[in-house]
Amino acid sequence: MTDSYKFITADSVLEWDESCDVIVVGLGCAGGCAAVEAAEAGVEVIGIEQAVQVGGTTALSGSMIYLGGGTPMQTKHGFEDSVENMYNYLSRSSGPRPDLERIEMYCNESVSHYKWLCDRDIPFGTDYFPGGYERVADDGLTWSGNERSHPFNQYAHPIPRAHIVQAQGEMLGGAVLVQKLVAAAEAAGTRVLTQTSAQNLVLDGVGAVVGVCCLQDDRKVYIQARGGVVLTAGGFIHNREMLEKYAPLLATSKVQIGCEGDTGSGIQMALSIGAAAIRMDAGSVSLPVYPPLSLKKGILVNQQGQRFINEDSYMGRVGEFALYYQQGRAYMLLDDEHFAMPEIWDSEVLVSSDSISEIENHCGFPIGALAQSLDYYNQHAAKKADPLFHKGADYLVPLLKAPYHLLDVSIDRMTYFTFTLGGLHTLPTGEVLDPQGKSICGLYAAGRTVSGITKLGYSSGTSLGDGTFFGRKAGKSAANNN
Amino acid sequence: MTDSYKFITADSVLEWDESCDVIVVGLGCAGGCAAVEAAEAGVEVIGIEQAVQVGGTTALSGSMIYLGGGTPMQTKHGFEDSVENMYNYLSRSSGPRPDLERIEMYCNESVSHYKWLCDRDIPFGTDYFPGGYERVADDGLTWSGNERSHPFNQYAHPIPRAHIVQAQGEMLGGAVLVQKLVAAAEAAGTRVLTQTSAQNLVLDGVGAVVGVCCLQDDRKVYIQARGGVVLTAGGFIHNREMLEKYAPLLATSKVQIGCEGDTGSGIQMALSIGAAAIRMDAGSVSLPVYPPLSLKKGILVNQQGQRFINEDSYMGRVGEFALYYQQGRAYMLLDDEHFAMPEIWDSEVLVSSDSISEIENHCGFPIGALAQSLDYYNQHAAKKADPLFHKGADYLVPLLKAPYHLLDVSIDRMTYFTFTLGGLHTLPTGEVLDPQGKSICGLYAAGRTVSGITKLGYSSGTSLGDGTFFGRKAGKSAANNN
Repeated sequence: MTDSYKFITADSVLEWDESCDVIVVGLGCAGGCAAVEAAEAGVEVIGIEQAVQVGGTTALSGSMIYLGGGTPMQTKHGFEDSVENMYNYLSRSSGPRPDLERIEMYCNESVSHYKWLCDRDIPFGTDYFPGGYERVADDGLTWSGNERSHPFNQYAHPIPRAHIVQAQGEMLGGAVLVQKLVAAAEAAGTRVLTQTSAQNLVLDGVGAVVGVCCLQDDRKVYIQARGGVVLTAGGFIHNREMLEKYAPLLATSKVQIGCEGDTGSGIQMALSIGAAAIRMDAGSVSLPVYPPLSLKKGILVNQQGQRFINEDSYMGRVGEFALYYQQGRAYMLLDDEHFAMPEIWDSEVLVSSDSISEIENHCGFPIGALAQSLDYYNQHAAKKADPLFHKGADYLVPLLKAPYHLLDVSIDRMTYFTFTLGGLHTLPTGEVLDPQGKSICGLYAAGRTVSGITKLGYSSGTSLGDGTFFGRKAGKSAANNN
Repeated sequence: MTDSYKFITADSVLEWDESCDVIVVGLGCAGGCAAVEAAEAGVEVIGIEQAVQVGGTTALSGSMIYLGGGTPMQTKHGFEDSVENMYNYLSRSSGPRPDLERIEMYCNESVSHYKWLCDRDIPFGTDYFPGGYERVADDGLTWSGNERSHPFNQYAHPIPRAHIVQAQGEMLGGAVLVQKLVAAAEAAGTRVLTQTSAQNLVLDGVGAVVGVCCLQDDRKVYIQARGGVVLTAGGFIHNREMLEKYAPLLATSKVQIGCEGDTGSGIQMALSIGAAAIRMDAGSVSLPVYPPLSLKKGILVNQQGQRFINEDSYMGRVGEFALYYQQGRAYMLLDDEHFAMPEIWDSEVLVSSDSISEIENHCGFPIGALAQSLDYYNQHAAKKADPLFHKGADYLVPLLKAPYHLLDVSIDRMTYFTFTLGGLHTLPTGEVLDPQGKSICGLYAAGRTVSGITKLGYSSGTSLGDGTFFGRKAGKSAANNN
């Protein structure tokens, strides 16, 4: 491994070791889709992967793909979605100033994307799974975001959109997804080189990308791309230096999610030729304060003892609010009737007591503040109301039975799952842009190497959704550049 | 004006129109200081400025320079500061993961920087000004941050550090500052070219920066830099497209602070040659909920009617909390005894009433929430305590006298003053870095073109402080590159 991803010029390449039309760098779900589309368009494709096996971060995931607008799976289970309804949800839940053009394209073509995936033998489950963590055997559709919780249920009719790829044997659904995609790519003629690590883009005299210099063991291999290079090399959650520079809050979590290759190499190779990387501070921050789901009946408070969110929000929103808006300090209070020890937590009960004021003292809350928050909550919950945050009725019960239990769910105690959402600025069709918004000739990107549809308030399945969908676009654009 | 800041290669330059050792691009306070240091080091310097006059955004400012560690001005007025005390404040108040190396250098050399400025005839005022907006005639030292407010008064002994350059005639102090700096630069031999707009960096065959292509009217002028180019071209608050891409929340304000030239041209020229720009989301967000200072006796609440900050915080912190953590929705409540119509607000009183519950109804606050916040506050303020946020005793009085007045200080009603704090990644000594942390040969930068000491929680004077101080470093580094 060299530590520099700086470009090299074509005139310094004495001989190409390999040649093709389109090189796809990184074979997770985005790269897999890019390779399929490019190869099916009839051009010669080489897919390279630095690891021993294809898969990337996708292979570590349970493989939810966020799809909707009326997929056969949704219809089968009696959910009436529409393109407009899906757009209304995603455009309001994807962080400040979302990329509406990208979201619109994604919603418009979501049903056909689902079919495209099915046509490539992606084994979606068949059953509807209403939620919780005890998944059913053949689950194919579930909830994975804030569709049912306030304020998003005011903007769009709540519909489940996570389409789940089934695990096979010991392979997680995500691994199956990539295997199937890469098999389809190979069936269409793609050559796959594993243990091949892209190091430098190769530029011709006018600044077009015409190849990639890779390392195989310690040997440099030069691969020519007559059409274009697609960077689908993941995000940068495992590059500590980049995190500190671009997204320091994401570095404060104990657990960063991603495969080893999520070191930002794709982003860095593109930056070295003057590409723009945008929204590099954005990330997914999940704080799983459940299961069991009954824990949503508790109240989440900040260090002032004030509630700060409707506790039925999705974990991708809870984590964001706790980390970004409450400086990573948060606590969960439950009464004895509704308390259950969390299943996947690494946190312990901080204090249990019959007296809220004793809990306040123990934890250094402002005197009377937690008691006041609880009183206000209980008074309205008894009437099935939550005037502050409009928590849903299912989880809205007064917390009355002592002893009370307080859990510290602050970032230094709990596992917040983080990964990066910032990256290269691209057109929805995959062309990588420079800071002036001009396409860089021969360079395409997708997946977590780019800034995609979500900036904050992550709904599970939008990363594989955006990765597969815009991976296809990027592969097609690169193929058409021949 | 061309819309592209893409680099050009030296072999495409047929003839240089001008030649020198160091080119300084943009003559605000950072560029002024860079030019002085470079010229005083004995090299040939050309300073270029796109406007008719030098000054940049500095010239629009009242010219506070954040200095400390025991300056003669501080000592004269009886304030005992130390380098360590200043460091303790700045390192805790400059946003998440501050650049500690930069802050340490800044604090260590702050006293000598003050003397350096005095030696170049910068006319600091002489008197101490305790605060408020009715400035005294010859004010030279005042408070400009969160030094006295919680939690920062727990980390460092509160000391005023804003050193004020006096206005002269119709010129604001900031304009005087730049005029004096540029005069010193010219006295040391710098040639100044106004109405000259840098468009492209010129690179030699090995990627070193060797000049700048400028526009004078519509004529291209090529200036050779034998040593280096210093980019001190301001931030990007007036480039709407860059704001939307990199720092969308800053775009939501009605008033963006900066001279016309703050379009990110310096950042873009550097990005085009593969420089790294970091923390591009960071900005200064000031919400001046005073004067009069008595307004700090009110309580600031979010849309849930909850307090969210100690109201004696500096406006640079109030704005940040309101915009970043409360989605730009905030309200200020005062009783009739302490209410005074704000002096520089564009907001009007939203509602006045004897009844808090009427105010809640009128504004759509959760029922009883504002009343509860006020009761809690009053109960403790009567004992000179603020258990939630530790507001200082000076502004801590119960709000008891009806009618109550509520002001909407949300971002769509009030003026939040914003400017960008993100920019090029540089060494404290000014070298511009690429994404791998390697210096780009011949390129230096300072001021708001770079990511400096402050990321959030802005204290006034840190931008001119950082601009002048690190502008000097960049100028000296460029001069030494000969």
